[in-house]
Amino acid sequence: MPYRAAVDDFNFLFDHVVGLDALRKTERFAEASDDVTRAILTEAGKMCDEVLAPVQRNGDLHPAVLENGIVRTSPGFAEGFAAIAEGGWIGMSADPEYGGMGLPMMLTSAVNEMMSGACLSLQLAPLMSQGQIEALEHHASDAIKALYLPKLISGEWTGTMNLTEPQAGSDVGALSSKAEDNGDGTYRVSGQKIYISWGDNDFAQNVCHLVLARLPGAPEGTKGISLFLVPKFLPNEDGSIGARNGVSVVSLEHKMGLHGSPTAMMQYDNATGWLVGPEQGGMAAMFTMMNNARLGVGGQGIGAAEGAYQMALDYALERKQGRAEGTGAIIEHADVRRMLLTMKADTFAARAIALSCAQAIDMNTATGDTEWKARAAFLTPIAKAFGTDTGIAVAEMGVQVHGGMGFIEETGAAQFSRDVRVTAIYEGTNGIQAMDLVARKMMDGGEAAGRLLDEVETHAEAARDAFPNMADAVWQASESLREATEWLVAQGDLNDRFAGAVPYLRAFARVLGGHMHLKAAMADKGGAREKLARFYIQRLLPEHVGLLAHAQAGDDALYAITVDELVA
Amino acid sequence: MPYRAAVDDFNFLFDHVVGLDALRKTERFAEASDDVTRAILTEAGKMCDEVLAPVQRNGDLHPAVLENGIVRTSPGFAEGFAAIAEGGWIGMSADPEYGGMGLPMMLTSAVNEMMSGACLSLQLAPLMSQGQIEALEHHASDAIKALYLPKLISGEWTGTMNLTEPQAGSDVGALSSKAEDNGDGTYRVSGQKIYISWGDNDFAQNVCHLVLARLPGAPEGTKGISLFLVPKFLPNEDGSIGARNGVSVVSLEHKMGLHGSPTAMMQYDNATGWLVGPEQGGMAAMFTMMNNARLGVGGQGIGAAEGAYQMALDYALERKQGRAEGTGAIIEHADVRRMLLTMKADTFAARAIALSCAQAIDMNTATGDTEWKARAAFLTPIAKAFGTDTGIAVAEMGVQVHGGMGFIEETGAAQFSRDVRVTAIYEGTNGIQAMDLVARKMMDGGEAAGRLLDEVETHAEAARDAFPNMADAVWQASESLREATEWLVAQGDLNDRFAGAVPYLRAFARVLGGHMHLKAAMADKGGAREKLARFYIQRLLPEHVGLLAHAQAGDDALYAITVDELVA
Repeated sequence: MPYRAAVDDFNFLFDHVVGLDALRKTERFAEASDDVTRAILTEAGKMCDEVLAPVQRNGDLHPAVLENGIVRTSPGFAEGFAAIAEGGWIGMSADPEYGGMGLPMMLTSAVNEMMSGACLSLQLAPLMSQGQIEALEHHASDAIKALYLPKLISGEWTGTMNLTEPQAGSDVGALSSKAEDNGDGTYRVSGQKIYISWGDNDFAQNVCHLVLARLPGAPEGTKGISLFLVPKFLPNEDGSIGARNGVSVVSLEHKMGLHGSPTAMMQYDNATGWLVGPEQGGMAAMFTMMNNARLGVGGQGIGAAEGAYQMALDYALERKQGRAEGTGAIIEHADVRRMLLTMKADTFAARAIALSCAQAIDMNTATGDTEWKARAAFLTPIAKAFGTDTGIAVAEMGVQVHGGMGFIEETGAAQFSRDVRVTAIYEGTNGIQAMDLVARKMMDGGEAAGRLLDEVETHAEAARDAFPNMADAVWQASESLREATEWLVAQGDLNDRFAGAVPYLRAFARVLGGHMHLKAAMADKGGAREKLARFYIQRLLPEHVGLLAHAQAGDDALYAITVDELVA
Repeated sequence: MPYRAAVDDFNFLFDHVVGLDALRKTERFAEASDDVTRAILTEAGKMCDEVLAPVQRNGDLHPAVLENGIVRTSPGFAEGFAAIAEGGWIGMSADPEYGGMGLPMMLTSAVNEMMSGACLSLQLAPLMSQGQIEALEHHASDAIKALYLPKLISGEWTGTMNLTEPQAGSDVGALSSKAEDNGDGTYRVSGQKIYISWGDNDFAQNVCHLVLARLPGAPEGTKGISLFLVPKFLPNEDGSIGARNGVSVVSLEHKMGLHGSPTAMMQYDNATGWLVGPEQGGMAAMFTMMNNARLGVGGQGIGAAEGAYQMALDYALERKQGRAEGTGAIIEHADVRRMLLTMKADTFAARAIALSCAQAIDMNTATGDTEWKARAAFLTPIAKAFGTDTGIAVAEMGVQVHGGMGFIEETGAAQFSRDVRVTAIYEGTNGIQAMDLVARKMMDGGEAAGRLLDEVETHAEAARDAFPNMADAVWQASESLREATEWLVAQGDLNDRFAGAVPYLRAFARVLGGHMHLKAAMADKGGAREKLARFYIQRLLPEHVGLLAHAQAGDDALYAITVDELVA
């Protein structure tokens, strides 16, 4: 069976778990009616199933290549991108003034995730454009907006983000690319950038790079960084394509997966660029783009999880093996069920968390309420790290469900596993996400976390009559998490927080997942969703106990062992 | 820094954690003195570092290929195999009567693991031969032994095992290969086998296949299966090579990793074979080979973990990034330390468990004591599944430590991850291992498990004075595991055990790991091993709580959801 975008699951989530009701009451999103959202999901799902999923294998088998300085993309990718562009899916949440649909991020997240499950490597292209669109909307001059946004939203042009340099990965502040003022409103940008996703392609008329660089005399570190828009071709005022700019692709990386997405080393030689945001205000602008992209990358993980789950489920339904009851297929084996239900339950949890993050973004956009802003900020690293960890774990389990066939490339299960692996690394490694969660996102003394847990516990109380055991398990887990949160907040030495950041983030996601499943169970009493919730709460939620022990261990044990002892 | 076989770790384990003393007191292994074992580890380690590790990348970059029916192996593999053969490492534990060294499996396991860390795909070749040697030693006629064993032990010939057919993977009993009696002591074997590791090569004079097939009129299922030895070339009585036999390589698989190991589809067309063991006694003989191979595959996982850990450690020591204290390298970051210490601590735990399994095999060999036999049987699935899961998780973390570089193939970190992935699948998937543990290995009512836990708790009591917290944590975890074991044993419906088999196996390994680390701490008070034990017991051991909740959930929740609901 081919890929089927999880349209029903999103409809259920919007109806019962992470509702759109509050959003629809705002002026900003009043038009996102039930009819509209259902139609959009159906339409986007159709494209995913019919156009994108069929080219997924092409990306792996026929990777993007660099020929004479030109990037040739995988067969069918140009058509796939055209379908995404024509559907309006790039600019779903973009400003209607420039051709966008002005829809909530909740819907964009849903569609992005569905596209990721269909063809992860291709979906990364519009995701990069979306980040650029949002950065330009917030930080660019009106002239730049008027010139670039319509082209990016229509998909005639694509966007990239250029942060990393060989000596500056997670530590963006160490970058050495330079920019100098030409005195005519333009700058000349020089330097080398690595790991540039979709650094070039052969289907867009222009490729627009957002490049972090340092102006003369700028201070060291992130403070001294400015952001520049550097197009491959210099546009004329009417938006037509002008001269070739001083930017080129040096090479493409040979990667473990995601072969359909060209990962470029880019060279800028006195390339003409335009400042976006104020001088030395590059990081703020970049963070706009990164926050968007982090949620998007979380969605990539979840999409890959959905695709891998469906493939494994199909195999388990068809593969006859052993003394299985019922259908005689391996799905009747307890351990295969354990794997499939784990995959399904975690995918649902990660999806609900990501939508919850998107909801907070939308509510903040619509109302300006800072509590929603704080929630979005708090949930972003969780959505990114848990979404991608889930993608990796689910794809890995998908390989296992296939047995020996899983290790054979022709099956396609291994591709999901190889492709999704990078999502835990790019847009800030999952370790960076966890550090962000326990440091920056707890500068409020744990308030945003506490409000989330209040909500979890209030709902658990309301669910006690219907599901006493499940409600109690979620409530208890939330209390344990609250204690751990208070412990973290009380640590003056940030390193004591960092030492347990990754297990803490995962425990938070586990508890939120329990909350989401409990909500689903309440909306489907006696149905499949209640049963899935039981599986999750009974079997997966208890993982938080070990994680929280790990999270509150402090950094002593990490540094007790000396480097010499490690090397010995 | 290149790969350094973990010779010191093995010496420490043999001295303090999984001692060789009892073995040395037996007549069988009296010669395995301290001097001998140290010399062997040093010598084997040297070969791993200098000969095998340098060809590891070749396997990935220049996979084995099938050309005109002939398998061409990766550059340097022939020389690597020759070094293994010349060192005597294939027949380390084989009968000295046929050229073996008669050494304990503990040493063979150590050397196998060291070779796996150096070059996993090549090491699989001698591992296959070792399994065949053991099967022939136990089940073949004297004539076959005299003819084949010297050649296999010397490495002039290699061995394979042929179980799987397209419709018969984990369910071996479904196989359809046929054998008919020629009436002259030989049989003609026909059928197709898939996933045959090292099904052919260009460095051995002969390749000997152990093939499961069914004689005419044999009952269905595993009961009706016989085992045949089918060489590529029919040997003359003097051991020289005779006529080509009716066996050929149809194709090689295109795999996610382990490209250096040719995984063949084999075709048998009235190939001449010799019966090994009695007619319809094939499964018993095959189990000899499989038990050996399962421990060996566990060692492959641990070796890959060691290799991946070393590569990640080197990177973390060299890579400058962020505001790191001390050396300025990323190893100073808490989360990188968390990853490296997790990798190191789990590798040690898995290694100690595998050696403990080998010890039980050796003690049973030397004394015939059935308690040791039961222990070996109980520990084999744990050593296999936890060793390979650790290999996969550690290699995965190794990729993460490398950040963006981890996803780039040139780095080599991704290769570890891709190569080791199959170890959780072949020689019985890890799900099969777990089912074996909770069913066959608990037919004794949990006695073997209970004796292990008695030992864990007795040692914890002895460690209480020195390390009250650590000892108590291990003791408590053991008690929880004992309760879970009793719960499993009490389940009349095996499916209730299977439903939690994988988490139970992992919890058992977690607790045994705590035991091994506590022993290490006792032998190195105040030293690096005590510190590593603290890390493990404080941060990783608590994982057992969630696992044991999962293990005791029964199968109700797994089957509450119908297949229709899953597909919907």
